[in-house]
Amino acid sequence: MKAKVYVTLKSGVLDPQGKAVEQALHALGFKEVGGVRIGKYLEIALDGGTRDEAEHRVREMCEKLLANLIIEDYRLEIVP
Amino acid sequence: MKAKVYVTLKSGVLDPQGKAVEQALHALGFKEVGGVRIGKYLEIALDGGTRDEAEHRVREMCEKLLANLIIEDYRLEIVP
Repeated sequence: MKAKVYVTLKSGVLDPQGKAVEQALHALGFKEVGGVRIGKYLEIALDGGTRDEAEHRVREMCEKLLANLIIEDYRLEIVP
Repeated sequence: MKAKVYVTLKSGVLDPQGKAVEQALHALGFKEVGGVRIGKYLEIALDGGTRDEAEHRVREMCEKLLANLIIEDYRLEIVP
């Protein structure tokens, strides 16, 4: 089984990396870009267990290690 | 309109950041983790244009700036 995890900054949290990419896109002529936010995307391979167990465990991984819940949100998908 | 872009390392390219997260998860007791690959997730706000134009332009952004096509793949979604 595999989990796909998306970790994004909460809205309202400054994203200097996103701002830098936005300015670089403008400089390249992509004037239609109104804003860029950058997050992390993780693919985690999991051995054994059911879908529900996997979801529960990956949620635990996010809360303990993968996301900083003060400034970040996460969202996950379990795929076979 | 908004674009969601996922940039991932090509398979076969070493991912030391993913390896470090994998080891940290093992150390925390998540022994079922078989591997971790880490990529980037970008949300890009776009002003005006049609869906097809947006997709074409974002593909151009990926090839010029957002992804390093030697070692990375990208995938994108356009959402209203």
